[in-house]
Amino acid sequence: MIYADNAATTRLDTDAFEAMKPFLLEEYGNASLPYVFAHKPKKALQEARETVASCIGALPSEILFTSGGTESDNWAIHGITALNYEKRATITSSFEHHAVLRACEAIERQGFPVSYLQPSSDGYITSEALSKVVTERTCLVSVMFANNEIGTVQPIQELCEIAHECGALFHTDAVQAVGHVPINVANLGVDLLSASAHKFNGPKGVGFLYVREGTKIAPYAAGGGQERGLRAGTENIAGIVAMAVALQKNVDRAIDVAARLLRLEDTFLTRLSQVGIDYIRNGGSIRLPGNVNISIKYVDGEMLLHRLDLMGICISTGSACDSVNTQISHVIQAIKVPQEYAQGTIRITFGAENTEDDALTIADALAKILVS
Amino acid sequence: MIYADNAATTRLDTDAFEAMKPFLLEEYGNASLPYVFAHKPKKALQEARETVASCIGALPSEILFTSGGTESDNWAIHGITALNYEKRATITSSFEHHAVLRACEAIERQGFPVSYLQPSSDGYITSEALSKVVTERTCLVSVMFANNEIGTVQPIQELCEIAHECGALFHTDAVQAVGHVPINVANLGVDLLSASAHKFNGPKGVGFLYVREGTKIAPYAAGGGQERGLRAGTENIAGIVAMAVALQKNVDRAIDVAARLLRLEDTFLTRLSQVGIDYIRNGGSIRLPGNVNISIKYVDGEMLLHRLDLMGICISTGSACDSVNTQISHVIQAIKVPQEYAQGTIRITFGAENTEDDALTIADALAKILVS
Repeated sequence: MIYADNAATTRLDTDAFEAMKPFLLEEYGNASLPYVFAHKPKKALQEARETVASCIGALPSEILFTSGGTESDNWAIHGITALNYEKRATITSSFEHHAVLRACEAIERQGFPVSYLQPSSDGYITSEALSKVVTERTCLVSVMFANNEIGTVQPIQELCEIAHECGALFHTDAVQAVGHVPINVANLGVDLLSASAHKFNGPKGVGFLYVREGTKIAPYAAGGGQERGLRAGTENIAGIVAMAVALQKNVDRAIDVAARLLRLEDTFLTRLSQVGIDYIRNGGSIRLPGNVNISIKYVDGEMLLHRLDLMGICISTGSACDSVNTQISHVIQAIKVPQEYAQGTIRITFGAENTEDDALTIADALAKILVS
Repeated sequence: MIYADNAATTRLDTDAFEAMKPFLLEEYGNASLPYVFAHKPKKALQEARETVASCIGALPSEILFTSGGTESDNWAIHGITALNYEKRATITSSFEHHAVLRACEAIERQGFPVSYLQPSSDGYITSEALSKVVTERTCLVSVMFANNEIGTVQPIQELCEIAHECGALFHTDAVQAVGHVPINVANLGVDLLSASAHKFNGPKGVGFLYVREGTKIAPYAAGGGQERGLRAGTENIAGIVAMAVALQKNVDRAIDVAARLLRLEDTFLTRLSQVGIDYIRNGGSIRLPGNVNISIKYVDGEMLLHRLDLMGICISTGSACDSVNTQISHVIQAIKVPQEYAQGTIRITFGAENTEDDALTIADALAKILVS
């Protein structure tokens, strides 16, 4: 099998698995207890928080562990707006992940106005677009770090400055980016940042929300005093420890991996062109390494997904949640891919494990389906 | 080490660990994807839902996977009240777990009135107490299946009937009970039930909420369409599969284990009396097997916890979340334990792995601390 859907999920790192094992098997004490048997889990929790924080340039106290990216996004949006009944407007983009979009729809139903910025045709939210909409009434701007379908990396630092000038807080859904591109929250200036472990070779069911010191956020789950009383529930120590190990490893190798992934992209696209496939590549060149989102003329992307699947190749048509849906994804619509191409959109996301051979095999498989 | 704090958390079942391994290591596909690589995770998810459902007499479609008991409790309370702005009163008890109590405090701040039923001195919420408070304006009654400190099992079926007579929905926090005592939601009549995997030898960070077919509940997390669109987020397949295995095993052995635990309780308490320790046992006799909550006269429970810890014995003074707190727990206050005993409360919760020797060793350790 060739797995080239690393934006949907990634293989658990074996060191991360080894790190979680003792906390699944022997060190199962509840970290909230005062006895010695709880010391190792408690210490591991603290160290994981320090590791995660250092990987994004944050303080350990600014990291709140969650059950994943969707929870982090929902929490950021509900948790900030819930405390801002006065200054209540939110701004996001029309091509966010559904975790952000649907959370925004939920707050709209509660009476919080939300504006949706349109991306440029190459997949960016510009400072100009935000400047036109942001006002003194804006409490929150939420723009993704990198788009999950086309991989375009947004000008977060610029957008953040504009938001701050109006006194608004800035959240970024960095689920696709954390562990893959350098992220430093201090430099970026963001107030909140969401991440999910399984997107960077950690386990499913765990993630984190960065919340800048001093930023007031409403609790997500009430109960025991875990996560500074903001997100109660017995800590998933094994998952959290594994996330920290996976993140540290990914951050350490990110630059090398990125260089390799760029070569894979090139290998793949060169071959595609060689065999005469009529495609356009979606999104501008500032993007996540390994992301190749292409639209092929007069073809059905879903057909391609299934034909490639039969040949042992895993790719996607859009985001994981949309792949069961035959409609053109909201991202492809937002960037206005021409009609004759839009239906033929596929997303190939190479990961650290993919090889040049994988890239060539996928291109050749597409050629076999389309050209023969 | 003797671990006798099984109400705080339990050791992960080794079969459960083996069941989760393939989904951590090889079968890491995102269950929302349509390709073959996602079939095994998707099938495992479906089978786990069937197993969990059958263990509590529910339909698979009535099981919603969550990140644990706290999330389940918060979801039940917020998710039901959010859809009942008209008929808005909630009734709970004063000795619920904090996940319920604090969620109720949160809805109170949102303007939903909450009544707190007082337990009897032997630790039960009576039908009479509920009858006096429930009205046609009550939308939700939430009473725990078994108390997490004193283990008393509440008359859920009776309470549920009274709630239903007034047209209210009934939720029970069954985190302490699921996997340990027979539970059939059809017989009980409950509309919602919360459970947490790590309380029945499953992993931390996963749980479920049972929601009776036809019961309308607001989503907990918006995003992808997972969990019928009610609780978005990439599924924690490994955790969910392990939970199902652990639950099935615990349910299968529950009657045998319960008989053994009752003998351990007896062994322990007989020895305590033999050595002349002046204690009272908290809570009436209808309780979770293995729970021994005692208050010892003129002693400090926290001192006992730490002295036992030094002797390699893990017990608790109250719930996991309260054990760092030197105050008398809200449960011990609610059942009005006499002042000279209350401070000396400890909770010993035997589990399937504990032996007669463990019970005797703990009693002898207490004797050594208190009598010598």
